Amino acid sequence: MNRVTFVLGGARSGKSTYAERLIEATGLPKVYVATAQAFDAEMQTRISEHQSRRTGWQTIDAPLKLADALHSQRGKNNAVLVDCLTLWLTNLLIAEYDIPSAFHVLLGVLRSADHPVVLVSNEVGLGIVPENALARSFRDHTGRLHQMIAAEAGHVHFIAAGLPIKLKG
Amino acid sequence: MNRVTFVLGGARSGKSTYAERLIEATGLPKVYVATAQAFDAEMQTRISEHQSRRTGWQTIDAPLKLADALHSQRGKNNAVLVDCLTLWLTNLLIAEYDIPSAFHVLLGVLRSADHPVVLVSNEVGLGIVPENALARSFRDHTGRLHQMIAAEAGHVHFIAAGLPIKLKG
Amino acid sequence: MNRVTFVLGGARSGKSTYAERLIEATGLPKVYVATAQAFDAEMQTRISEHQSRRTGWQTIDAPLKLADALHSQRGKNNAVLVDCLTLWLTNLLIAEYDIPSAFHVLLGVLRSADHPVVLVSNEVGLGIVPENALARSFRDHTGRLHQMIAAEAGHVHFIAAGLPIKLKG
Repeated sequence: MNRVTFVLGGARSGKSTYAERLIEATGLPKVYVATAQAFDAEMQTRISEHQSRRTGWQTIDAPLKLADALHSQRGKNNAVLVDCLTLWLTNLLIAEYDIPSAFHVLLGVLRSADHPVVLVSNEVGLGIVPENALARSFRDHTGRLHQMIAAEAGHVHFIAAGLPIKLKG
Repeated sequence: MNRVTFVLGGARSGKSTYAERLIEATGLPKVYVATAQAFDAEMQTRISEHQSRRTGWQTIDAPLKLADALHSQRGKNNAVLVDCLTLWLTNLLIAEYDIPSAFHVLLGVLRSADHPVVLVSNEVGLGIVPENALARSFRDHTGRLHQMIAAEAGHVHFIAAGLPIKLKG
Repeated sequence: MNRVTFVLGGARSGKSTYAERLIEATGLPKVYVATAQAFDAEMQTRISEHQSRRTGWQTIDAPLKLADALHSQRGKNNAVLVDCLTLWLTNLLIAEYDIPSAFHVLLGVLRSADHPVVLVSNEVGLGIVPENALARSFRDHTGRLHQMIAAEAGHVHFIAAGLPIKLKG
């Protein structure tokens, strides 16, 4: 059975809450892999809001080393939530990582996961083409990553207004 | 039976036309609750286009007092179209209303509606994160409102290219 | 039988690859109607990537005269891919064509197509309202075109993360 679920949605679409409910439903110990980094007060507020919902979760901070964090969960039978891939990708771009290679490593770890894992990401490609070249590049990387994760996942849900559209599984 | 239908979609997705057809299908007298305010010529053109389609409708202007407008419809057995929530929210922000409190009052009125009501709104959270802090705040409020309305509604339809995706009901 | 399929999706959503697979599945000779024009290096890179996937296809360049290109395919029993409508619309706007009239002519040709045709386009209306008036106008034209094509098509698929949501047919 494929253990990977991909939850995709817009800003404030309720995707994190939806993903948390999927994790809760497993009945397994809950691990939250956080990719967010607080660069400013606005980001800190968003992070605090998420944390306040997640009492009873073990938290692993993985702004960059997401594959390592997931790999560390092998053999433990926890249910693992990754929130979210777009922030991880932002961090990779800022730190000038090799993006295709980071994607390749992540996919390898997902393929061999022996526990449920739910990955959350923001759909960002449905607005007007950004004027900013960096934003266009970010959008392209994000779209490619989403296609790769969706191809690997057993279940893919698109969330709008808190409600899921089942894309796969 | 839940009388509330939520119609969500992008710009020029055909969501208003779709919502109007839902109202027409009830066979009841038609009321159009308009939240738009004409600040400029472009907006005036959009408003005129919508109005020309709506002969045979009673119109109530409610750029801010949407809950009052809906409350006034109790006991009348009209079918009520609210178009649209994103403009209402824009007006609330410009007038510096207390947003969470306005949402709370609106939800209360919807919960006790004794007539069909169709609410139209724009999905705005599926593009790149806006650089403008006000736009990010607007996007967050919109997303939260959509989740609340969708949770309350009996039917939720997402419109793309004039065609509905049924999210609920 | 309606021969027209409309494939709508975000940036890097996998919509072109998906559309190509629909064409391959017909087993007919493959024609690629390209609307892209290389104005800069970034665009040239995108075009080259698409071309490298399309060996074994006949290519017709139609940055503006899309209806003529489609009309030229009558009676040939080829499977025709148009990629993409948003670039065609961009070219029309730059060349100051009469947009409603160009849409009308395109729809007429689609209505009488005697071969499979798959049209690809970008959904661009699900982000924050653009500050730029030209971008708003582009978004409006795009939305109207999508509604018209979707109404004409026998099949409409919305693509996210490489996966289709069936809107029609």
